[in-house]
Amino acid sequence: MTSYDQIMKLALERGFYFPSCEIYPDAPAGFWEYGPIGVNMKNKFIALWRRELIRRDSMIEIDGSQIMSRSVFEASGHLLNFSDPLLECKNCNSIFRADRYISEKIGRAVPEGTSEIAMNSMVAENHIRCQNCKGEFKSVTRFNMMFKIGIGSSHDEAYLRPETCQTIFVDFSRVFKTMRGKLPLGIAQIGKSFRNEIAPRQSLLRLREFYQAEIEVFCNPDRLNEMPKFDEVRNTRLNLYDDDYHRDITANDCLDHGLLPNKLVAYYLALLTEFYGKTGIDMKRTRFRRLTDDEKAFYSLVAFDFEVETSIGWLELVACNYRADYDLKGHSSTSNHNLEVIEPTNQTKVLPHVFELSMGIDRSLYTILEHCYHEDFRHDDRVVLRLNPYLAPITFGVLPLMSKTIMVEKSRAIHSLLKKDFDSVYDESGSIGRRYRRLEEIGVPFAITIDQQTLVDDTVTVRYRDTMEQERISTGELKKFLEDKSAVV
Amino acid sequence: MTSYDQIMKLALERGFYFPSCEIYPDAPAGFWEYGPIGVNMKNKFIALWRRELIRRDSMIEIDGSQIMSRSVFEASGHLLNFSDPLLECKNCNSIFRADRYISEKIGRAVPEGTSEIAMNSMVAENHIRCQNCKGEFKSVTRFNMMFKIGIGSSHDEAYLRPETCQTIFVDFSRVFKTMRGKLPLGIAQIGKSFRNEIAPRQSLLRLREFYQAEIEVFCNPDRLNEMPKFDEVRNTRLNLYDDDYHRDITANDCLDHGLLPNKLVAYYLALLTEFYGKTGIDMKRTRFRRLTDDEKAFYSLVAFDFEVETSIGWLELVACNYRADYDLKGHSSTSNHNLEVIEPTNQTKVLPHVFELSMGIDRSLYTILEHCYHEDFRHDDRVVLRLNPYLAPITFGVLPLMSKTIMVEKSRAIHSLLKKDFDSVYDESGSIGRRYRRLEEIGVPFAITIDQQTLVDDTVTVRYRDTMEQERISTGELKKFLEDKSAVV
Repeated sequence: MTSYDQIMKLALERGFYFPSCEIYPDAPAGFWEYGPIGVNMKNKFIALWRRELIRRDSMIEIDGSQIMSRSVFEASGHLLNFSDPLLECKNCNSIFRADRYISEKIGRAVPEGTSEIAMNSMVAENHIRCQNCKGEFKSVTRFNMMFKIGIGSSHDEAYLRPETCQTIFVDFSRVFKTMRGKLPLGIAQIGKSFRNEIAPRQSLLRLREFYQAEIEVFCNPDRLNEMPKFDEVRNTRLNLYDDDYHRDITANDCLDHGLLPNKLVAYYLALLTEFYGKTGIDMKRTRFRRLTDDEKAFYSLVAFDFEVETSIGWLELVACNYRADYDLKGHSSTSNHNLEVIEPTNQTKVLPHVFELSMGIDRSLYTILEHCYHEDFRHDDRVVLRLNPYLAPITFGVLPLMSKTIMVEKSRAIHSLLKKDFDSVYDESGSIGRRYRRLEEIGVPFAITIDQQTLVDDTVTVRYRDTMEQERISTGELKKFLEDKSAVV
Repeated sequence: MTSYDQIMKLALERGFYFPSCEIYPDAPAGFWEYGPIGVNMKNKFIALWRRELIRRDSMIEIDGSQIMSRSVFEASGHLLNFSDPLLECKNCNSIFRADRYISEKIGRAVPEGTSEIAMNSMVAENHIRCQNCKGEFKSVTRFNMMFKIGIGSSHDEAYLRPETCQTIFVDFSRVFKTMRGKLPLGIAQIGKSFRNEIAPRQSLLRLREFYQAEIEVFCNPDRLNEMPKFDEVRNTRLNLYDDDYHRDITANDCLDHGLLPNKLVAYYLALLTEFYGKTGIDMKRTRFRRLTDDEKAFYSLVAFDFEVETSIGWLELVACNYRADYDLKGHSSTSNHNLEVIEPTNQTKVLPHVFELSMGIDRSLYTILEHCYHEDFRHDDRVVLRLNPYLAPITFGVLPLMSKTIMVEKSRAIHSLLKKDFDSVYDESGSIGRRYRRLEEIGVPFAITIDQQTLVDDTVTVRYRDTMEQERISTGELKKFLEDKSAVV
């Protein structure tokens, strides 16, 4: 199985991602950059998300500020509750996240929402000491994970948002009205969120600054089974995991067997499944895990994590949370704005409930890389990133077979004709075999080679990354060929 | 002429942009959100930028963290110099940006880099008082415009980047190596920057959190006239403005007459001109204004602002700055990393110089809206946003002519077939005339109407936004029609 280290090596060496500010010794941990190959792959992932979720479901998308006022987080509860419990050693001042540290030492999970008092007891009862110096710990303290910002010359209190969804809740009223919304309506946002993690780790997997692709479906809680569009996905197969495994079960059967609470939830979990099915992730190694009451937020009526198996365990890619009216109620009462909307069928007012699909983009990209990474032992151990062509960071490379001037000029001319429409590279250095390897490693699905025959009849060879088969194509047909082959299917 | 207020009204009412956190009284000024229509338009603008600048010129793009370490801004000079001079009233504590306030009162510009002492003298000599209470001012103070961030439980000092280019400089060495770069090489980045402006104003025009699309061209200072690709743009026409106006002059003539310093600068200004020529901005109302020594940063050898005439005056959309080796030298000496690269032709080491094209996305979008906004007095004063189809937030609307069930079902079916591939709306409410108006106002170039005849022969009418002409098209040909008509030309 592909390892985390193999992906990290590829990422660093081939321009997928690398640490931020790395030339400086004071570079803070938990910040990473997308290199040119990573940027392209991220853009294509986002394009697929727009196509298969947003446009397919006729959702709308907004893009709001990352710095938001204090009131927002008073209403959302983040000022009070968005904190990690800390353990600090009395002797060496080492700092650990208390719940994780305790659970490692006692060998079982510390439930979400365990009080400081209870954690102090656990530390005492289990004689837990500092792993660095054997010192005793101070009492557990709380550390708010939001980054504070001072605005203007008077440094008015504001915060970097810890989750993109707050923008959607705060903007809901105007967006719903100006876009003439009708429930159920998905409002989405792609953007950065910021969390002052105590222990950021594993590159893209726990960042302090990260990309979310968030969807908040606003709905009428009395009409969660009035979903005509559920019929589009009734036969879509999911993997569910609660006390038991339910593999390869249709959305409709999930409802019939009471595994999912209503058609609205079933529809969106199915849509998400179809989306990830197109990313190249091995869907057999995915599941919707139903969270236990200990795990889910107190306001959440039902919650599923979409998880994927990777070399470092099951990884949560999407949190699917039925948040009920917790958010709009909070913002309504703190802001004194009525956030109800009119249900047109009977002209009654309703405060919408929210079902959320909160996706981590960075983690999704890591997982796709791991599932698509392939070592081909039959052919010189070549490394092949078997990305779907529509997710490939580079769609094609143009390679003159020899460095003769006339062949190079012809190659550049062909590249010029195509390069505005696709992400591409031109490469004339090294043997043709080495150039193929470089392309395969970053997942380029098509290598276009210009050879002697090109100069005669204006045809090129297109070599397929996975099969290494070659096909002869006239240059005039290349654009259509590449468009067709890199279309989403 | 279209006014700022007309665009603001359209933006607020139709989902282009609106103030952030607007339901809260503590919403800080200078933060704005893109609504669904604005997001789509921004995405299309960025797609055009990628196509006509990045891919056309074979540049590479990165996407880095917004929070960067203290050292970065020590090296860049921002910690020391990125500050605004403040005037504070002794009596009522009103705060003004000193240079702007003084220049308003004395009726001439206060040059960039004027010292506090000089400004204090100007205040005294001109008897400048507080405009709110006639009070005297305290001495001018400096206010650093970066937002400070505390990382981790020890709150280590870091900053939100005030410009995206610093990421490119700090990442240059790794990116150049892993991407096997050769000079000249453009490295680009789209992302947010943050400035704690004293007086943010005019919605998208002076924000505290804003989008930049930045290009840094790394080049060998000894080879600024070795640019074979200059030939592609030698006949591209620019408007230059220094002491004199030079209108409609080719890039090549700019060089011949000594108006531009070298082929590299001329090439990129021409590329930028061609890009903006495709955005729908009236290029007759644009100019590259050469900055005077008073205006440009001290390290800049030559600088041009790309400016566009709008209802509120000339607006700077892109700063084009020859920054020489100022940035890499600073980061090199502060980080103790050698940032030189090898020039392959003669194997010598060179510290690249930088020519920067720093584009404001938000301002560009505002300007496009203003230049494309049109009131059609011949037809009921209809408002038409004459956006190029490839920049239109919504490509088409699907409108059933009547609300008969069979026509509505047919319309939804046609919409379903197309909606994943384009940004589109479906609209069945109100008279057909009102529905056309709603589409025209947000620049939708094509309205697809399903009528009685559709049910008979599977054809629809496509109505063109600008001419209001109609054309009958078979539904099977719609996808290709829309692709062709919304392609970049």
